[in-house]
Amino acid sequence: MHTETVVIEGHIVDSGIMSEILDTIIKSGAQFKIASFEMGKTNLDPSRAKIEITGPKTAVSDLLPRLNVLGCFLDSPQQVTAKPAEADRVVPDDFYSTTNHTTKIFLDGNWVTAENQRMDAVIVIEDKGPVCRKLREVKQGDKIVCGVGGIRVIPEFRDRDRSDFAFMMSETSSERRVELAVKRVADLIRKPGTRTALVAGPVVVHTGSSRATCDLIESGYVQLLLSGNALAVHDIEQSLYGTSLGIHLDNGLPVNEGHRNHMRAINTIYRAGSIANAVKLGILRSGIMYTCVKNDVPFVLAGSIRDDGPLPEVITDMNMAQQRYSEELRSIDVVLMLSTMLHSIAVGNMLPSRVRTIIVDINPPVVTKLSDRGSSQAVGIVTDVGLFLNLLSQTLRR
Amino acid sequence: MHTETVVIEGHIVDSGIMSEILDTIIKSGAQFKIASFEMGKTNLDPSRAKIEITGPKTAVSDLLPRLNVLGCFLDSPQQVTAKPAEADRVVPDDFYSTTNHTTKIFLDGNWVTAENQRMDAVIVIEDKGPVCRKLREVKQGDKIVCGVGGIRVIPEFRDRDRSDFAFMMSETSSERRVELAVKRVADLIRKPGTRTALVAGPVVVHTGSSRATCDLIESGYVQLLLSGNALAVHDIEQSLYGTSLGIHLDNGLPVNEGHRNHMRAINTIYRAGSIANAVKLGILRSGIMYTCVKNDVPFVLAGSIRDDGPLPEVITDMNMAQQRYSEELRSIDVVLMLSTMLHSIAVGNMLPSRVRTIIVDINPPVVTKLSDRGSSQAVGIVTDVGLFLNLLSQTLRR
Amino acid sequence: MHTETVVIEGHIVDSGIMSEILDTIIKSGAQFKIASFEMGKTNLDPSRAKIEITGPKTAVSDLLPRLNVLGCFLDSPQQVTAKPAEADRVVPDDFYSTTNHTTKIFLDGNWVTAENQRMDAVIVIEDKGPVCRKLREVKQGDKIVCGVGGIRVIPEFRDRDRSDFAFMMSETSSERRVELAVKRVADLIRKPGTRTALVAGPVVVHTGSSRATCDLIESGYVQLLLSGNALAVHDIEQSLYGTSLGIHLDNGLPVNEGHRNHMRAINTIYRAGSIANAVKLGILRSGIMYTCVKNDVPFVLAGSIRDDGPLPEVITDMNMAQQRYSEELRSIDVVLMLSTMLHSIAVGNMLPSRVRTIIVDINPPVVTKLSDRGSSQAVGIVTDVGLFLNLLSQTLRR
Amino acid sequence: MHTETVVIEGHIVDSGIMSEILDTIIKSGAQFKIASFEMGKTNLDPSRAKIEITGPKTAVSDLLPRLNVLGCFLDSPQQVTAKPAEADRVVPDDFYSTTNHTTKIFLDGNWVTAENQRMDAVIVIEDKGPVCRKLREVKQGDKIVCGVGGIRVIPEFRDRDRSDFAFMMSETSSERRVELAVKRVADLIRKPGTRTALVAGPVVVHTGSSRATCDLIESGYVQLLLSGNALAVHDIEQSLYGTSLGIHLDNGLPVNEGHRNHMRAINTIYRAGSIANAVKLGILRSGIMYTCVKNDVPFVLAGSIRDDGPLPEVITDMNMAQQRYSEELRSIDVVLMLSTMLHSIAVGNMLPSRVRTIIVDINPPVVTKLSDRGSSQAVGIVTDVGLFLNLLSQTLRR
Repeated sequence: MHTETVVIEGHIVDSGIMSEILDTIIKSGAQFKIASFEMGKTNLDPSRAKIEITGPKTAVSDLLPRLNVLGCFLDSPQQVTAKPAEADRVVPDDFYSTTNHTTKIFLDGNWVTAENQRMDAVIVIEDKGPVCRKLREVKQGDKIVCGVGGIRVIPEFRDRDRSDFAFMMSETSSERRVELAVKRVADLIRKPGTRTALVAGPVVVHTGSSRATCDLIESGYVQLLLSGNALAVHDIEQSLYGTSLGIHLDNGLPVNEGHRNHMRAINTIYRAGSIANAVKLGILRSGIMYTCVKNDVPFVLAGSIRDDGPLPEVITDMNMAQQRYSEELRSIDVVLMLSTMLHSIAVGNMLPSRVRTIIVDINPPVVTKLSDRGSSQAVGIVTDVGLFLNLLSQTLRR
Repeated sequence: MHTETVVIEGHIVDSGIMSEILDTIIKSGAQFKIASFEMGKTNLDPSRAKIEITGPKTAVSDLLPRLNVLGCFLDSPQQVTAKPAEADRVVPDDFYSTTNHTTKIFLDGNWVTAENQRMDAVIVIEDKGPVCRKLREVKQGDKIVCGVGGIRVIPEFRDRDRSDFAFMMSETSSERRVELAVKRVADLIRKPGTRTALVAGPVVVHTGSSRATCDLIESGYVQLLLSGNALAVHDIEQSLYGTSLGIHLDNGLPVNEGHRNHMRAINTIYRAGSIANAVKLGILRSGIMYTCVKNDVPFVLAGSIRDDGPLPEVITDMNMAQQRYSEELRSIDVVLMLSTMLHSIAVGNMLPSRVRTIIVDINPPVVTKLSDRGSSQAVGIVTDVGLFLNLLSQTLRR
Repeated sequence: MHTETVVIEGHIVDSGIMSEILDTIIKSGAQFKIASFEMGKTNLDPSRAKIEITGPKTAVSDLLPRLNVLGCFLDSPQQVTAKPAEADRVVPDDFYSTTNHTTKIFLDGNWVTAENQRMDAVIVIEDKGPVCRKLREVKQGDKIVCGVGGIRVIPEFRDRDRSDFAFMMSETSSERRVELAVKRVADLIRKPGTRTALVAGPVVVHTGSSRATCDLIESGYVQLLLSGNALAVHDIEQSLYGTSLGIHLDNGLPVNEGHRNHMRAINTIYRAGSIANAVKLGILRSGIMYTCVKNDVPFVLAGSIRDDGPLPEVITDMNMAQQRYSEELRSIDVVLMLSTMLHSIAVGNMLPSRVRTIIVDINPPVVTKLSDRGSSQAVGIVTDVGLFLNLLSQTLRR
Repeated sequence: MHTETVVIEGHIVDSGIMSEILDTIIKSGAQFKIASFEMGKTNLDPSRAKIEITGPKTAVSDLLPRLNVLGCFLDSPQQVTAKPAEADRVVPDDFYSTTNHTTKIFLDGNWVTAENQRMDAVIVIEDKGPVCRKLREVKQGDKIVCGVGGIRVIPEFRDRDRSDFAFMMSETSSERRVELAVKRVADLIRKPGTRTALVAGPVVVHTGSSRATCDLIESGYVQLLLSGNALAVHDIEQSLYGTSLGIHLDNGLPVNEGHRNHMRAINTIYRAGSIANAVKLGILRSGIMYTCVKNDVPFVLAGSIRDDGPLPEVITDMNMAQQRYSEELRSIDVVLMLSTMLHSIAVGNMLPSRVRTIIVDINPPVVTKLSDRGSSQAVGIVTDVGLFLNLLSQTLRR
């Protein structure tokens, strides 16, 4: 039998994380004993618990990495272990795989915060300090953090959002009043200094909420657009011919030659050389892409296997596209994910958990999926995306 | 080998019914020959086809009832067959089971239209003529129409809706522009003389569209409300305490004692004696039920196994509830079904196919189910019901 | 400023209920102080906390009922308050509305458990002790429990299911291995002495799992069937004619006269007088209803507004149907809810939280809805019900 | 007023295409007259109709491209028009955009079939004949087919599938008997000479049907696997560590260090150099990827913006990935799409309509989406993918 003592601090009781920790220990078959417990006397004070875990040696040491993820750290901090990468892209077997929560490394007697926090990365100890890196970016000889000693995760305790987002935090239901959710989102993105990214699928165009999206951009509420080829093509098709997938936006009916409009839009942009050029030449005069160009809002379009064209601005190499998404997201505080599972999961993978993430989708499983993949900070609104955007734009104009 | 000749008339080609007829013959293993075909020369003229069906005798006679449903009738009309019901609720084995399409009976040399058309009924030949009746309403000795000879079904050819509803008629997709659907619905129900019924589930209250629903009623766009106990209880809970299922409509948060409000609302109405009395006594002063009472819009509340209470006006016997729904629906032209599968299927069962039926639900399978059960005239709008009603009310105010 | 002290005992930390309590206090705007906290030293010991709540008098007294639901009780127990019902079905305004958790009443110096625990009831103090009653069953003068003093709720702490059901307890996802869920369900219902009820919708017949359901009944794994008219009609239609809703179960194709089979089945049972008679007369020789009759497994069929017929055994009065459902459920330990939202919510309303409840549905929102309505003990399996039942039957035969 | 005469041949009545043609004309506001109509006398004979369309000149000429898509061609065939591409990737404005149906070009007095048929392509007239090309592959000076004269589309009339797939062809419902669908799919892919491709998402692994998938491959029923990085990573994670997304396949519970397994799997393959190498070195000894390598079944893994890693075999450039998918699909007759919207739409875009396409997904909208995007030949089965594959494998072993 072996015993280890871990410490956890913060809003550990009211955030539910204490339950998760004890649950994890119990499920693993080990025993716990609360060595000490200083409960925050009021809702402003953090609590602090010291937990003794006892069990077979392997059971206990197996538990440590899982408790680490929940914010537990060893009572007596030890220097972090770093080992060299054996080759480019290849790390030691016991490498530490990151969460999306702020992570500190005990290095030379100090807790130092890792940079570029994201999930599923490794931590490389560079001269300037620890940095999160994708596995494919590791170079031979890089110093890779291994094991769990000297690593401390600071979970988001969800307390700050309590009054704002609590109502969206439980189950994902379509039986809610959407106006309230819209009002909260509006309050969030109109807060001075907030930088908001839209991650948008083509449904934004199909449902006729392109105008509302342009309003958001023109009013300065959007600092970044992340999407794919489809949104851009449908948006440009609509600007040039009034249709999306050949269906006229004004009457919902298929138009003559409608099925060609999609390809005509691509051909037109190919002829102009790029979306930006098409705006400059006065060929493209409205729509989401036009509005981004005119308002200097950066957009990154990532390619996909289902693309037609793709348009010249679309980044067809996925490693490069991830790189660009990730760079642009660094300065973002709020992400609004609009009916695109593909790009939403991609962005969820890149974001630190401190970024407020709101998923709007008519399809409830999309929210569950994102949360299954670790983006537990994401809250979901199950509604019609078109009507949501129209309402958000109206609310922000008031 | 046996041959029968059937006739079909109407917009049989452009409505797709010709395809269905030939398909049905082919699938049954019989052969067809088009004996004559007079295609309507323009889109205003009906077409007429005479089809010879050849096959084994049983195959051919098995086919006739299925072609009858599609509007085919035997070339040489024969007197309809009527046999006496052997007991109350019990009819001869070869009874004719109705569709929801207008049906004519060849009686003493004339085609006479059956009254109270609905699906899954039998036709009783009364002194005043043929009438559709539920099986349970049949009395011993009633003259029951049997077989398929002398019966002609007039399918709805869907042509009249072409310009209005075509866009909603194909697949049920959430990737559509809902504003357009709202506009069409608004045009339909504001047409002078149109009588519209709402078939509404409690989501109307949960999603905060109670105000919009009251507006529709006050503006005279609603002639009938069909629902159950839950809508009324949640509506009254909201009027009295501002909550629905204990969640406050103004901020989306659970309120103190919220879980009791549901039962308090029922207790309050029990004390007043009825909803109508609660309005009269000034206890109930707002909400959908209040607005119905004040504007003399009839409502029928059908009980269900999941009810709390139920409220005094709720009809707890299902046979009686069906009777009342059905009577009130006789004068209705348009039915708007809002997020309630139970009541929507119930109403779909009772309606003749000439009544325009629009289903609004965030859940696509609901529409498919209704259509699987024979209400093929129903068109679906996949969207958030709360936002839909708000938008409909705004559109009608313009 | 006012202060009250409440106590909570049990697996309050690892079950997450401590988080909920503190959360509730914080959201209400009051302050808390942990007066004492005895954490269970191991995972077998219960914990005990004393919490001081301080705030404006109304805020604190508003909080008490909500904390009561979570298992908190006032530190110094006081005699429960009971007031007479002013009329049949009418109770005092401050009546206590029950949860589905075991509830104790402090009566003459002792904690006495209320009988027939269910949610949304009132507690009547009868000579033999406290009993849960539906509002409509209250008689003038009945002694009704009011306020929250002297009432203690014992929440299910979910600990007992930890090893068995944990994997189904979190989010409802279709991305799970269904075989594992089937195995757990099989283990549960084959435990000696377990009494299992099926709450089944007609999809059980449409998806071809009637045979598997009969196997479960014949093997003694089912002690009760709760359903509606549709299941029985479709089952009998299939037994008599091989079809359900006119679609042949063997090849999935519509059959000749298929649309009549539904009504023919009803007519046949009307002629026999009842389902039980049809079995006795040798008319009905297979299927779920037949198997129930032959194996003396009781069934209760509740009517609904969408019924055709209905069949003679169907209870058309909803108050009576609820009564019968509820009586039969008294001795049940496990409920398997199969693709029927209507009957599942009805049953959920009646069950004490100690009954293990498993919902199987291909549609994820069904599970969310049940849980939204207070049946938090229910766990969901998102899968194809037909394949689920076949697999369950195979697993139990092994 | 202007008149044009078009001809249509084939199973135009029973396939429903005649309805669509007349509908299209009516909706456009033009008039039609059936100049002649030779109905196939039996179900083996094709029919032939000549239709005169009259209306304003622009209306009529706008109609022609839309009727062309439905199989209509001008009565007097004229030489196809070809114009040179003005630059790489840029074609004349009136370029012809292809459907996925077999297309014939009237060239020098003969109807010549275009090669590599797919939707949303242009037709380039090369020396060897007309060929479908993606816009991005067009080179300056290529002869591009323009307008609609001299072009004839041969729609799939759906007749050949009548007996096999009819039951899946109508609406997409989960209320069907899946065993029947499985049997039909089994019959289809076991037909000698049939070449079948799986297009599979990672759900295949999460739901535990990896073993069944391997059985299909080993038994020779699979000639091609198209997927993405996620399937391969989850499959390899499961082979190496028994988990997928950290959840153990044997008990459904999260394992120690589970969240790392995903990244460990990638690291292991990076160390081996590739999946194929990991098989060769004996590191990877089971699972879908292993079975493909061992059985020489080609696989193409397309990258995406949400990838972790990605694995060495994953093609990260989307243009290249499309190229490879498309080449491998040339020889395929049947495509089984398993729970992956992204890859399914991608593959749907590339396939000629003659390839039988079956979509299996628990989520009904996926099927609707594919069909909205033009892959009208696709039929859907709404069920649990894991149970479907297990059942398919069992059925094929019998």
